[in-house]
Amino acid sequence: MEHLDLAADPVDLTCALVDIQSVSGEEAAIADAVQAALAGLGHLEVVRDGDAVLARTNLGRPSRVILAGHLDTVPVNQNLPVRREDGVLHGLGTVDMKGGDAVFLHLAATLPEPRHDITFVFYDCEEVEAVRNGLGRIERERPEWLRADLAIVGEPSNAVIEAGCQGTMRVELRFAGRRAHTARAWMGVNAIHALAEPMRRLAEYEPRDVDIDGLTYREGLQAVRVSGGVAGNVVPDEAVLTVNFRFAPDRTPEQAEKHVREVFDGFELSVVDSSPGALPGLSEPAAAELVRAAGGKAAAKLGWTDVARFAALGMPAVNFGPGDPTLAHTREEHVKTAEIRQVAGILREFLA
Amino acid sequence: MEHLDLAADPVDLTCALVDIQSVSGEEAAIADAVQAALAGLGHLEVVRDGDAVLARTNLGRPSRVILAGHLDTVPVNQNLPVRREDGVLHGLGTVDMKGGDAVFLHLAATLPEPRHDITFVFYDCEEVEAVRNGLGRIERERPEWLRADLAIVGEPSNAVIEAGCQGTMRVELRFAGRRAHTARAWMGVNAIHALAEPMRRLAEYEPRDVDIDGLTYREGLQAVRVSGGVAGNVVPDEAVLTVNFRFAPDRTPEQAEKHVREVFDGFELSVVDSSPGALPGLSEPAAAELVRAAGGKAAAKLGWTDVARFAALGMPAVNFGPGDPTLAHTREEHVKTAEIRQVAGILREFLA
Repeated sequence: MEHLDLAADPVDLTCALVDIQSVSGEEAAIADAVQAALAGLGHLEVVRDGDAVLARTNLGRPSRVILAGHLDTVPVNQNLPVRREDGVLHGLGTVDMKGGDAVFLHLAATLPEPRHDITFVFYDCEEVEAVRNGLGRIERERPEWLRADLAIVGEPSNAVIEAGCQGTMRVELRFAGRRAHTARAWMGVNAIHALAEPMRRLAEYEPRDVDIDGLTYREGLQAVRVSGGVAGNVVPDEAVLTVNFRFAPDRTPEQAEKHVREVFDGFELSVVDSSPGALPGLSEPAAAELVRAAGGKAAAKLGWTDVARFAALGMPAVNFGPGDPTLAHTREEHVKTAEIRQVAGILREFLA
Repeated sequence: MEHLDLAADPVDLTCALVDIQSVSGEEAAIADAVQAALAGLGHLEVVRDGDAVLARTNLGRPSRVILAGHLDTVPVNQNLPVRREDGVLHGLGTVDMKGGDAVFLHLAATLPEPRHDITFVFYDCEEVEAVRNGLGRIERERPEWLRADLAIVGEPSNAVIEAGCQGTMRVELRFAGRRAHTARAWMGVNAIHALAEPMRRLAEYEPRDVDIDGLTYREGLQAVRVSGGVAGNVVPDEAVLTVNFRFAPDRTPEQAEKHVREVFDGFELSVVDSSPGALPGLSEPAAAELVRAAGGKAAAKLGWTDVARFAALGMPAVNFGPGDPTLAHTREEHVKTAEIRQVAGILREFLA
């Protein structure tokens, strides 16, 4: 088994973690190494759950902070082992998200007596279908491990605190017509032509920018799929338009649905899927303290991440990790070593 | 080999032809029978070309009429052998188009001295891709057999003379955008949204009705396919709209293209395929005579058929055959025996 030196420089620790291959479903080796290293520290309660590793301080502090990171990566793509070069680490997982994991593990080793109690959650299968997500399993089976006053998820965020997240909803507008030969088009009803008006509304839609806790959430209403057509000489009898609404967390999914139905008033639509957003909650004391430690800077989280799971459990939750999220899942994944140290420094100031 | 009695009632002859199975590519048996029967008449020059049979009178008449019909059918669909019932024939090919073939064969046997010289063209592979079409092969290899003053194609037309045909053109409008995550939609350009304006023009388009030689051609501009979309959370970077323009034969394909480009002014489009229409030519003497024999009634042909091949060779060309064309290619194909006799009667009056 790989021995991890948690007290080492978090950049070296990132390299060690990257070199333990851990594609989703194959996290046993990395979980073994993390479990052994955390248990070896002596001051933490450590539990193994499948290929997730949970650890916590029990110092009786008035508040508790969760530091959570997934251990798995997307499949290998000619980007292992790690390559160090000029202040940059290249390789699978450097961004998503072994840099964040390394920072948390480093803090576990070097902050035996933090100001807040800390719960560490290193989990499996974040990169695959939601039903396999290790955090979801822990939420169902060990809910007591997910109680805290603030959750910090170490996903890449360019070392900026990203708070809350947008909700997302997909709706389908389905149009029926009547088939006919195009040479006798007047005997049919063209379902594709029926898209003209909803398409116009989409193209002219002006999304809101919403300020919450000093952060700006930009909404968006986007067609993500359109399809229709039977044959080159047939008036089509069906067309489907799928629209994705990304909404600020001041709307509930119910309010978001009501809004989309107003936009497409007069047309039938069905909701295909829907996930609530998460309010940033930066006015909560522990969250406000973290933002202060980061120099007062925070941004709105745009995508949907596991942050929303913590928010749904009733605590403020933020993304905060080294690396550019747009590099995640690319072969060229790489992270600046300075960002790893910067995130570690800010969290140390917050927790020490 | 099946013996065909060409002098018999054309309804009986239709039954005999239907019962010689002749799915496209398997026309040898029916071509053998037709060739032997025509040669047996003694007054015709008969030529076999693949599984097509050509025959003609050489009486030195001042004008010549082509009677053309395909011998093949679409695949069998539990609709053989022929079933006779109450003045109706049921079965594969009763409509498309052995009723028309039977009428022509009957006239070959019973009109040894017609007023116009007649060329009979019974051909193969009309129901499959154009490159296999027997009439196309004859046009390339024996063009002298396709010279005449009028062509009558015996495709089903409800026993009404259908003259000329619409042209058809398919164009593609292809829109490029820029991909982005829908959570950051402002970083992308949605290619589907770009369809809104061309869709509006399509939905509002008012097609012409055009009168030519007393016939009305109704044009049409119809979306026949639309597609676009990458994933449920991605601003799509490509969308394609395919439009079919059916145009009256007073426009050339070049004029039709110019018109479509005007409709979609400001958008790029490419022509995917294009076939010219055919003017009805009913003012030509032989055609006018045929219309008189039919009681003065003629209608505009809407679909594109082999009539257009003859029109392109410079002669007026019409569809004229028993049966409802909307039953063609259905399992329930059937024809009224009265229509078979009606078409035979009108052509006899015209040719006798």
